[in-house]
Amino acid sequence: MAAAAVNGGGGENKAAFARIYDALKAELLRDPAFEYTESSRQWIDRMLDYNVLGGKCNRGLSVVDSYKLLKGVDVLTEEEMFLASTLGWCIEWLQAFFLVLDDIMDDSHTRRGQPCWFRVSQVGLIAVNDGILLRNHISRMLRLHFKKKPYYADLLDLFNEVEFKTASGQMLDLITTHEGEKDLTKYNIGVHRRIVQFKTAYYSFYLPVACALLLSGESLENYSAVENILVEMGTYFQVQDDYLDCYGDPEFIGKIGTDIEDYKCSWLVVQALERADESQKSILFENYGKKDPACVAKVKDLYKELNLEAVFHEYESESYKKLIADIEAQPSVAVQKVLKSFLHKIYMRQK
Amino acid sequence: MAAAAVNGGGGENKAAFARIYDALKAELLRDPAFEYTESSRQWIDRMLDYNVLGGKCNRGLSVVDSYKLLKGVDVLTEEEMFLASTLGWCIEWLQAFFLVLDDIMDDSHTRRGQPCWFRVSQVGLIAVNDGILLRNHISRMLRLHFKKKPYYADLLDLFNEVEFKTASGQMLDLITTHEGEKDLTKYNIGVHRRIVQFKTAYYSFYLPVACALLLSGESLENYSAVENILVEMGTYFQVQDDYLDCYGDPEFIGKIGTDIEDYKCSWLVVQALERADESQKSILFENYGKKDPACVAKVKDLYKELNLEAVFHEYESESYKKLIADIEAQPSVAVQKVLKSFLHKIYMRQK
Repeated sequence: MAAAAVNGGGGENKAAFARIYDALKAELLRDPAFEYTESSRQWIDRMLDYNVLGGKCNRGLSVVDSYKLLKGVDVLTEEEMFLASTLGWCIEWLQAFFLVLDDIMDDSHTRRGQPCWFRVSQVGLIAVNDGILLRNHISRMLRLHFKKKPYYADLLDLFNEVEFKTASGQMLDLITTHEGEKDLTKYNIGVHRRIVQFKTAYYSFYLPVACALLLSGESLENYSAVENILVEMGTYFQVQDDYLDCYGDPEFIGKIGTDIEDYKCSWLVVQALERADESQKSILFENYGKKDPACVAKVKDLYKELNLEAVFHEYESESYKKLIADIEAQPSVAVQKVLKSFLHKIYMRQK
Repeated sequence: MAAAAVNGGGGENKAAFARIYDALKAELLRDPAFEYTESSRQWIDRMLDYNVLGGKCNRGLSVVDSYKLLKGVDVLTEEEMFLASTLGWCIEWLQAFFLVLDDIMDDSHTRRGQPCWFRVSQVGLIAVNDGILLRNHISRMLRLHFKKKPYYADLLDLFNEVEFKTASGQMLDLITTHEGEKDLTKYNIGVHRRIVQFKTAYYSFYLPVACALLLSGESLENYSAVENILVEMGTYFQVQDDYLDCYGDPEFIGKIGTDIEDYKCSWLVVQALERADESQKSILFENYGKKDPACVAKVKDLYKELNLEAVFHEYESESYKKLIADIEAQPSVAVQKVLKSFLHKIYMRQK
């Protein structure tokens, strides 16, 4: 296939990216490090299609997009496209690993419009081991395609460190939200920021750009400002998510928010706690985290009373201004373009 | 502390190894890659003591022992002792990671004389994430103490590959033993060998020696024969385990075997299936995997009829002869010593 044919516009990009999934899966299914039986090979084949596919691939595709912007080209060679896409798929595999295990821990029912993997008949808690295998596949793919690169150890370190940060954020979320009896006094903006930053921002925002930087031969030590900006953006993204859970149009965002019922450490409840007087606080303490629609309505009324919509819009516009200023302080125009492309995908989104 | 004081005999060795656990844990609890809160730090502290400690540390200590034999010294410098022990503790952390998750998947009750971690109050399925964190700690410890070593990438590859093999063996065990209805026709010596080799032998036998070899500056590519011997030894060890589950003295081995009740793909049932005539097979099909003591007794009677004790002793002595011959074909006497020290720890064991 000629390089020009591999990726022209966005749609072709996505098609080329999708084809590389098939190649990567085929390699994993003939990995000589394990002696597959017919039934174990079929198990992995099905498990991968079920859990790695079905998402929007935003994280994975953004490795390819960022790499193009960093190189300043519209079209990558076939080799470059393959390597960038492989790193993109590694992030999609990482996401699948987190989701399979999170769904077990949260006792969730559906994911991406189908039953969670552990709820599929004959799977059950074998899903725990499948999650581990998804994580192991990343190491296998990196080893197969990047072992000879000078940045191989840095790539392993990157995935390891981001995984550690994500699992630590998840721990904080689990012990804050689930441990012991419900206690709203544990919720504050510091706890919220920490959970969001570690659980979501590093792997969703920093990791794709860090992969593209390594692929471009850059040393990540020189990009701590970029890391901070992306983590900031990821935090902003999750605050939007918390906002839309309550104020988004269910038709449009494709789900009905249940953060209030689920006793989530949402940005909204944290803002409400900060602004509430004693009598308003007692309304929150009595009604937050209850399934009863009357309780949910009381919480929402309080949010209205405290004008949280305006508080959010103020946060949104301040955050945007700060991010733009930080981005424009970056010495490299290519890096600025990468960061702006991320920002413009998420700013003012309504789903 | 003077080098000579660090490790003289076996007991001192063990004490020095134990002290290094405290140092490694303290480092993890102040890891700047996560912003610990007081309660998350306490959680990890307790989780580590609960799950990493309490075993015999055979795997971990054998890194130190093997490294001494490879270097041909009785005493290591403080630095060498620290690095060898850190790798040993990484294997103990890996074991803790597997055990925490296996206990969830097997719905087990006790481990090392205490309730399984997921059964501890307030823990539950947070244990899944704790398992992930245990695995992540290995990467953190390796990065902190080995990043500058020329064999750093090989060390990461080694842990990754061994983890992949172990999880793949676990998958095979899970889908063979648990999936669908009970079907003894799925059990044969090939399936048994594969489960044992991948699920147990690589991480318990090959990994400690491979760590010691890397620490000694050796390239693992040159040691595929050593890998084969250790995997063979690990397989032999597990066959013993299967044998002792049925024929060992419960007083002596410290537990009452339940492989027959649990429908395990044990070496004994595989041997029985190979030797049974049609009427004996139907006894197995009717009674294997049932809790009823009368069923268990019928299976045990059949094992006696088929003379499986003698079959085991024949296997044991053949296996020993083959291993000794393979070991003595090794060009390095130091390597021979390492392999023989493993073999003599396990041969003819009764618990």
